[in-house]
Amino acid sequence: MAEQQEKFTDLNKLGEFGLIEHITQDFPLRNASSIKGIGDDCAVLEMLNGQTVVSSDALIEGVHFDLTYVSPEHLGYKAVMVNLSDVYAMNAIPKQILVNIAVSNRFGAEFLESLYAGIRNACNEYEVDLVGGDTTSSFSGLMISITVIGEADEADVAYRSGAKENDLLVVSGDLGAAYLGLQLLEREKEVFKEDPDMQPQLQGFEYLLQRQLKPEARKDVVEILKALEVKPTSMIDVSDGLSSEVLHLCKQSEVGMAVYEEKIPLDPKVYEVCEEFNLTTTTVALNGGEDYELLFTVSMEDHDKIKGNPNFTIIGHVLEASSGANLVTRDNQYMPLTAQGWDALKK
Amino acid sequence: MAEQQEKFTDLNKLGEFGLIEHITQDFPLRNASSIKGIGDDCAVLEMLNGQTVVSSDALIEGVHFDLTYVSPEHLGYKAVMVNLSDVYAMNAIPKQILVNIAVSNRFGAEFLESLYAGIRNACNEYEVDLVGGDTTSSFSGLMISITVIGEADEADVAYRSGAKENDLLVVSGDLGAAYLGLQLLEREKEVFKEDPDMQPQLQGFEYLLQRQLKPEARKDVVEILKALEVKPTSMIDVSDGLSSEVLHLCKQSEVGMAVYEEKIPLDPKVYEVCEEFNLTTTTVALNGGEDYELLFTVSMEDHDKIKGNPNFTIIGHVLEASSGANLVTRDNQYMPLTAQGWDALKK
Repeated sequence: MAEQQEKFTDLNKLGEFGLIEHITQDFPLRNASSIKGIGDDCAVLEMLNGQTVVSSDALIEGVHFDLTYVSPEHLGYKAVMVNLSDVYAMNAIPKQILVNIAVSNRFGAEFLESLYAGIRNACNEYEVDLVGGDTTSSFSGLMISITVIGEADEADVAYRSGAKENDLLVVSGDLGAAYLGLQLLEREKEVFKEDPDMQPQLQGFEYLLQRQLKPEARKDVVEILKALEVKPTSMIDVSDGLSSEVLHLCKQSEVGMAVYEEKIPLDPKVYEVCEEFNLTTTTVALNGGEDYELLFTVSMEDHDKIKGNPNFTIIGHVLEASSGANLVTRDNQYMPLTAQGWDALKK
Repeated sequence: MAEQQEKFTDLNKLGEFGLIEHITQDFPLRNASSIKGIGDDCAVLEMLNGQTVVSSDALIEGVHFDLTYVSPEHLGYKAVMVNLSDVYAMNAIPKQILVNIAVSNRFGAEFLESLYAGIRNACNEYEVDLVGGDTTSSFSGLMISITVIGEADEADVAYRSGAKENDLLVVSGDLGAAYLGLQLLEREKEVFKEDPDMQPQLQGFEYLLQRQLKPEARKDVVEILKALEVKPTSMIDVSDGLSSEVLHLCKQSEVGMAVYEEKIPLDPKVYEVCEEFNLTTTTVALNGGEDYELLFTVSMEDHDKIKGNPNFTIIGHVLEASSGANLVTRDNQYMPLTAQGWDALKK
């Protein structure tokens, strides 16, 4: 316990009186709803318009990230993106974040500064205010827990539960790249273990690596939908793989869905690297995860607004609940989707 | 990495499809501002009245708690209290919490159920809604990160920065008991290590143990102040010890303060146990921490409303900034207060 108290106090000094205060000075408040940020018992917000959405997610070292190949700047940035993505998935605009970090003694002040630099970049890029949270010690590893607060007009909020029969199923961007980025990094890590003098072979794979290491939340999708005057009937972000997210929409909307294998949007590099790793592109897209794209349904009436927009791909449609959630394969077979997450990719 | 993914997926199943869904079913929404709770990308709130306050704090195993003598129910309850206390310290009413838990494989489903039972008890007792968060795996130990959201009329919000010269300095309840509760538990842990057959000697110390293991946030103080029509000019909760909190108020209000040693409220058991441990009661009150009482300043005009109220003790007053923050000892010496937290208690 003597040792515990000593470490606790060290951290207390670090957190409340020193480094963190210094670091968080670089976080200005830019949103009108942020009345008071860091420095009191609570942040104070003024949510004058519409509804408030709030979500919280934690990233744990060894579970969600590996510091062998993730830089602290990228980690801080990604931790914010993971949370912002949940707000965009409500068709809302994120305004504030609170960041709790637990960090062991093996991380120095420089590491923490870099981590917060990534968080600051994300705040700048997405016009979000850091208004609270805490930095404390841990006995092992690093944990980042972020809460995000956003705003939306009541009429705009898109739940998972609003999909209706005959709606179109749409996804932004492309799928599977982040998972393959991770596979590439894991392979180079193994090579490095064998021979530390080997240089990593990652040239030409920039897109896949960026999707894994520095993903962007789809702020633009919410803006484009607003400009198109399209209100999604349901929406979710693709964090655990397309399959899992389709099942969530089906369950909560009490509908079935058909997803057409041939329609799933894939980057050319995904084909190339799937071949190298002896993986099928569809499995990677369905179960890879960490894409942070938005999956949503729209009314058939909005078909012409969505079709041909380079940000969106119509990948299927909504059926009655009894049909279940199915993949329609290239040879027109119906395969029930299952929520396997990353598990399906293991042999 | 195979191992990492395996653990991640296990937890993913546990978290998203199984136990957590089952556990969180027992959390009804009771506040009008809670529109949608757990089950979508975000919770949805409707903050119609006044301002929103928000705070986030993490409790880390080995740093903030020791599972040798803390039950999971008490831990869940206390983790909520620590956060609610920050909202009451703004003179606001907590309405929602989000809970992120990271837990290693050494904890089973029963442990998690007990932890959530404590969280549920706290929610019931304090009329707060659990509206979000996540349960994920960790490679070592347990981490609980909670975000709390509260409401207050703009005119009622009490910052740390509003103390004015000649204001009275007031504290609720009594101080130092939680720290001594911890010392008792630590002593019994050492005894148990020497001889596992020894029964813990904790009878008669129920109050000190309750203050450490199952603290209550001072909801009643906010209600009493409202009933008395007293608006604190500044307020903070006592989590790191009186000394540290007085310094926070002084710094942010740009004032000095005098705290009278003889006025510091202490439970009789605090005297008794301080003697046993060869500690001085004043040191324990100043630096012990975890009291979760409220420390606030009120205008001199409110003196008669506060004086004689059994919940409050006037322990000092506000001076000009140049006077600094001082303890006025029983023999009328002025001793500058320092922010030593728990550190001062180690020899």
